[in-house]
Amino acid sequence: MSMSKKVVLAYSGGLDTTVILHWLKENYDYEVIAVCVDVGQGKELDGMEEKALKNGASKLYIEDAKEEFMKDYVFPMLKAGAVYESKYYLGTSIARPLIAKKFVEIALKEGAEAICHGCTGKGNDQVRFELAIKALAPQLKIIAPWRIWDIKSREDEIEYLEKRGLEVPMTREESYSRDRNMWHLSHEGLDLEDPSKEPNYIKLLKLGVSPEQAPDEPTYIELEFEKGIPVKLNGETLSPVDLMFKLNEIGGKNGIGLSDILENRVVGMKSRGVYETPGGVILYAAHEELEHMCLDHQTYAYKQQVALKYAELIYSGEWFTPLREALAAFVDATQETVTGKVRLKLYKGNIIPAGTTSPYSLYNESIASFTTGDLYSHKDAEGFINLYGLPSKVRAMMKQRNQ
Amino acid sequence: MSMSKKVVLAYSGGLDTTVILHWLKENYDYEVIAVCVDVGQGKELDGMEEKALKNGASKLYIEDAKEEFMKDYVFPMLKAGAVYESKYYLGTSIARPLIAKKFVEIALKEGAEAICHGCTGKGNDQVRFELAIKALAPQLKIIAPWRIWDIKSREDEIEYLEKRGLEVPMTREESYSRDRNMWHLSHEGLDLEDPSKEPNYIKLLKLGVSPEQAPDEPTYIELEFEKGIPVKLNGETLSPVDLMFKLNEIGGKNGIGLSDILENRVVGMKSRGVYETPGGVILYAAHEELEHMCLDHQTYAYKQQVALKYAELIYSGEWFTPLREALAAFVDATQETVTGKVRLKLYKGNIIPAGTTSPYSLYNESIASFTTGDLYSHKDAEGFINLYGLPSKVRAMMKQRNQ
Amino acid sequence: MSMSKKVVLAYSGGLDTTVILHWLKENYDYEVIAVCVDVGQGKELDGMEEKALKNGASKLYIEDAKEEFMKDYVFPMLKAGAVYESKYYLGTSIARPLIAKKFVEIALKEGAEAICHGCTGKGNDQVRFELAIKALAPQLKIIAPWRIWDIKSREDEIEYLEKRGLEVPMTREESYSRDRNMWHLSHEGLDLEDPSKEPNYIKLLKLGVSPEQAPDEPTYIELEFEKGIPVKLNGETLSPVDLMFKLNEIGGKNGIGLSDILENRVVGMKSRGVYETPGGVILYAAHEELEHMCLDHQTYAYKQQVALKYAELIYSGEWFTPLREALAAFVDATQETVTGKVRLKLYKGNIIPAGTTSPYSLYNESIASFTTGDLYSHKDAEGFINLYGLPSKVRAMMKQRNQ
Amino acid sequence: MSMSKKVVLAYSGGLDTTVILHWLKENYDYEVIAVCVDVGQGKELDGMEEKALKNGASKLYIEDAKEEFMKDYVFPMLKAGAVYESKYYLGTSIARPLIAKKFVEIALKEGAEAICHGCTGKGNDQVRFELAIKALAPQLKIIAPWRIWDIKSREDEIEYLEKRGLEVPMTREESYSRDRNMWHLSHEGLDLEDPSKEPNYIKLLKLGVSPEQAPDEPTYIELEFEKGIPVKLNGETLSPVDLMFKLNEIGGKNGIGLSDILENRVVGMKSRGVYETPGGVILYAAHEELEHMCLDHQTYAYKQQVALKYAELIYSGEWFTPLREALAAFVDATQETVTGKVRLKLYKGNIIPAGTTSPYSLYNESIASFTTGDLYSHKDAEGFINLYGLPSKVRAMMKQRNQ
Repeated sequence: MSMSKKVVLAYSGGLDTTVILHWLKENYDYEVIAVCVDVGQGKELDGMEEKALKNGASKLYIEDAKEEFMKDYVFPMLKAGAVYESKYYLGTSIARPLIAKKFVEIALKEGAEAICHGCTGKGNDQVRFELAIKALAPQLKIIAPWRIWDIKSREDEIEYLEKRGLEVPMTREESYSRDRNMWHLSHEGLDLEDPSKEPNYIKLLKLGVSPEQAPDEPTYIELEFEKGIPVKLNGETLSPVDLMFKLNEIGGKNGIGLSDILENRVVGMKSRGVYETPGGVILYAAHEELEHMCLDHQTYAYKQQVALKYAELIYSGEWFTPLREALAAFVDATQETVTGKVRLKLYKGNIIPAGTTSPYSLYNESIASFTTGDLYSHKDAEGFINLYGLPSKVRAMMKQRNQ
Repeated sequence: MSMSKKVVLAYSGGLDTTVILHWLKENYDYEVIAVCVDVGQGKELDGMEEKALKNGASKLYIEDAKEEFMKDYVFPMLKAGAVYESKYYLGTSIARPLIAKKFVEIALKEGAEAICHGCTGKGNDQVRFELAIKALAPQLKIIAPWRIWDIKSREDEIEYLEKRGLEVPMTREESYSRDRNMWHLSHEGLDLEDPSKEPNYIKLLKLGVSPEQAPDEPTYIELEFEKGIPVKLNGETLSPVDLMFKLNEIGGKNGIGLSDILENRVVGMKSRGVYETPGGVILYAAHEELEHMCLDHQTYAYKQQVALKYAELIYSGEWFTPLREALAAFVDATQETVTGKVRLKLYKGNIIPAGTTSPYSLYNESIASFTTGDLYSHKDAEGFINLYGLPSKVRAMMKQRNQ
Repeated sequence: MSMSKKVVLAYSGGLDTTVILHWLKENYDYEVIAVCVDVGQGKELDGMEEKALKNGASKLYIEDAKEEFMKDYVFPMLKAGAVYESKYYLGTSIARPLIAKKFVEIALKEGAEAICHGCTGKGNDQVRFELAIKALAPQLKIIAPWRIWDIKSREDEIEYLEKRGLEVPMTREESYSRDRNMWHLSHEGLDLEDPSKEPNYIKLLKLGVSPEQAPDEPTYIELEFEKGIPVKLNGETLSPVDLMFKLNEIGGKNGIGLSDILENRVVGMKSRGVYETPGGVILYAAHEELEHMCLDHQTYAYKQQVALKYAELIYSGEWFTPLREALAAFVDATQETVTGKVRLKLYKGNIIPAGTTSPYSLYNESIASFTTGDLYSHKDAEGFINLYGLPSKVRAMMKQRNQ
Repeated sequence: MSMSKKVVLAYSGGLDTTVILHWLKENYDYEVIAVCVDVGQGKELDGMEEKALKNGASKLYIEDAKEEFMKDYVFPMLKAGAVYESKYYLGTSIARPLIAKKFVEIALKEGAEAICHGCTGKGNDQVRFELAIKALAPQLKIIAPWRIWDIKSREDEIEYLEKRGLEVPMTREESYSRDRNMWHLSHEGLDLEDPSKEPNYIKLLKLGVSPEQAPDEPTYIELEFEKGIPVKLNGETLSPVDLMFKLNEIGGKNGIGLSDILENRVVGMKSRGVYETPGGVILYAAHEELEHMCLDHQTYAYKQQVALKYAELIYSGEWFTPLREALAAFVDATQETVTGKVRLKLYKGNIIPAGTTSPYSLYNESIASFTTGDLYSHKDAEGFINLYGLPSKVRAMMKQRNQ
């Protein structure tokens, strides 16, 4: 009996991965281990095993990674305040390294020699998956059919299956290219490819509504954080997963978290996407309020720079790198006192701060208010300005000397 | 005939500067030249000269600096995309160096030996005024009564005038401390000094309304930029000043541009302010859309860092410094192609992009879309990822070697 | 019996602190606790207690902080690679927070209400001491006689003592202002105040010689590091303190570690100093070699930026701040694999790398060498360049379109 | 008569480009235009044309680009202070974009459709050439034989020529891989590929000697800069080219400018090189001295960060990019006052500052010296420290509150 070699296939049960499954069987001498990682994409997982086996997989793993996703990926990103190019909350990017990690774990367990994914050759995700795999198990081969085969479109895929008399998993009409997990939902393609056009939000949105469709009455919420991590919503302790789903619901209902962005991909091109991150944007906003209260200026300002780099690393698939890990150590050190309660008013797309408190607040009303307190002497300001302004004065004198 | 020495006084006609005028006359042997710089604060200027002379000034200059404010201060800041601590659009900060410059110009013209300002010893503005003065005319003396005298409150001021039988300019009740110019309006003090409290926007706002009070129908606008500077609104060429006032009106009506922030002052304390920047926030948003289209990633990403420093310098009063000027040269170089049209939908506090076009667009639909174009070969991605991921792979191998 | 209040005095037994001791007794109702912190300044400590008591102190603490200095201050700085303005190895700066910490510890133990130091009002050290004190025990008063009294010079000090019939501790002629500890020795003042003049190194140097006076034969050394910290010299395990003294001797003999710099002080002025850091510069060089071998480019490059900020914080006295601590967490994370051996050739001021090895080396000869290895396909480079260069190509096409 | 298409070939007359010339003729239907760009590599150019034509080129261009190299490439880099990974003075990197620009100019003039270069698939230079070509003439094809053919070594090349009965240009033994221009000379390969080994400098060096071989007497020089650019050496006005050659001679003789570095290539691997930059390192050192005198701290500190990015861009071949150009605008703005004279003492590898003067000096002896001057009041320092240290104090109080 010959032992065939194994490949781990990123499997969703959709058209792409069904075609790939057959193509793999046809072109390689591999046993195919299908893997589906649940990061809260909310798809129907029932019947998936049957489908995978029917299409030639020898096995299907369904990995529930939702808790790990929140704790080890989303929360570090939230603490960092990472946003890519001012507007993208990194929903797809942050899930990729975890999904890749699960593929690797199963590949190692199964003794597979390769991992196969269905990302196209134009996108960011191939980079994210493959960098993670290289970082975790450099010996594994990577198979990326879209960079190999001649199939070029959805139509080609359907034809591929039909030619072989195979069932085509979905026959619905052409749609946006979407990626969903518990942090976000992205939309790309079709009319969005023309950035001179306004997106048709009514048609597009899935996680929530547009501001116009949101209720006329505001919703107030209170979030409580411990060391930069949300632990309670409206006074109730919730698991990270529950808190996230709950916040998505509240945010989505209030038209929160839409982003329409022409972004720069890792692979060198601009592309346009519309993102829904209803709960995520609320978490960022609440966290930001608390940082304003609990961080001193220097820490806050340096952290803003770190956030830019952190976002870049997440976006580019460089999660499992020494730099990302070192930046995370920096961020964690800043979060020691980011603890407290933030009240927010959500209203038709707006997140309006409605009061923040923290035992670690660095705001001191007696210093800040107009009347002089013990801690602050108005007269000190003169000395401060004289020294702070000394370089300007010396330079001005130099200029006068040279006139 | 003895020639008395002169002082230039920053004069607004309000309580503070009226008291200062008298205090100066009482305590110094100065001829007082009152100066009021118009940066669009929208105050009544009629009758001001009479008031100044009546209170002892020998002269009143009213300087219309609105055009200069927009062109030489606001636009460079806009091109830089400078925002302080994520939320403050630098409305007060950006006007200070220009106002100081006007004081200096008049002081030099008049042969004055000092400049006197009414800033308190706790705020940022004393720093901004004095750094600018030091940079422009280091020989001038600076008099800051609030750091010298024993007056400690509004009540003390009123008493000061009443004791001398002088008219008290305003007798209205205690109010927020406000600063207004054509870019913004700020509110501080009273109940805002408690950051656990939600601001009462209805009572507070002057330039616009809160999102809830805004119309139920959205307003669409189109802004056209040339090299990073707005030149047309809805197809109509407008002067910077007219464009700004018009945008403030539109933005204010739609509940745009509110910011509630616990910020870190230059002088080392946190303080809480509420800001209205209705037109400014629209300009920033439109400019941002265009930069997404016309800047490559590297330039965009580096400029984000520069914006942080630029904001810091504006906030801290370091406008007339070599670093600020060098950063402005950087920014200007990036704006060569930031030209095009941005359509925005304004709706109850939201600014929603509604289509952007530019002759310098770096977006290339044929590259970005799923189907392979000539310019892009999917197969190139493999080589890219292999080299891009090589450090990760080498590192992983090193780790395996050390296990 | 009345309990008098106490002050802790930074005491060295020299002219300055002797005058201050008497001045304190004369002007305040304080019991004076003299404290001398040993950070390897190499001064005679015998007889110091007698001297302190004779001059009116009630007690003298001599704190041996050499080990703590190396472990908790010098090593974190070394790991960070912090250098101020390209040339200053922060010798005085890095000792100040530790010395202040010792003062605070004794002040708290003794129940003192104030700390008194002998720094002038023009220097950096007042800032460093006082920021550390504020961060550790904000309730303590700080007394800085040089900012209070009328004494303005060395001559005034001698006169002060003579008038009172007190012994003047040293009568030697005017000399450079020097600060010494086990990391460095600084020289300021006299002819050094003219930056157009070359320093007279022969007259100046104390820790070592100039390159010209160094031996004609090179000295080879080997340093071994563990996680960024030097643990062995020439194969011998040494305590941090012993290693430092040994390296100073070797470096000093070979003319290593001289720095002549016109630096910018925290208090806004430029000042010129000459520094000897013979052992320190060797440690930096060796550490740098190892980082070239063990860090990937991204980490190395980001760490270069962090080093600039880290140096700034040390220089400005911001050691006990959240930002410095968070940067230290970043640095520590990068040092996990900075382990290995570095051979250096020391020759008349030169430090010449002479071979580095590490179990964590990321250098891979088979990849690097001209001949293709398995890990690297020359053909991958084409894909890499095509995507890496895509933004340039798209931009060039945009420019051609607009010609 | 058929018009054959043309290719521009980067030609040096050496083994590599001779083989490529023949390979091109054999494999493509191209007329080959050979181009040699003179950036001061100091090779014999006599007889080159004959050689090129004999080997099948239809034409040879020899472009003297030395002046342009200094003015438009080296000087901007010098003003920026760009150094890659602390030790590499970018000698090869800075010449590549200019050489590529010359290729493009000739290709456009000749109507060629492709450019062919002899860089390997492992190095940085392919990236630098191709990015420059893409940026300047995106329509041109690029042919990189080393990524295409089966030739893998020097031996294969010789065999290729011998098989065809062609003359082998050089028969000398295997040597280091070297790149030379008027700014530097690099050495790679052979024993240098083992980073645990000390380089054999005596065997290796070409532009100068090692410190040990340098004269026992120091050489003093004086360099004069205008706006960051060197204009005089020892009082004599020299053209950029003459000044560079002169400085290389002086520096080389004194053992200046050696660098042994394990660097990270753009293509993801580490590689070890030894560099000689004798004149260049002197220019950097002199320029640095002047910047210490003429720049304020903030500008200096920010410029240090810019220098890191600038070096990265040069190293990675991103010269003709908007970001590099914008950074150059920043740098130029900082250089307005970098004018003055720097005296240096060169001694056996050491560059020792020996006095700097500038009309724009920001050093003010009366402020810096111990005795109080008018411009500086010691008492101001207290106020300065109180406000500067306020965040530390407030934070300490918060911590005490939470104990």
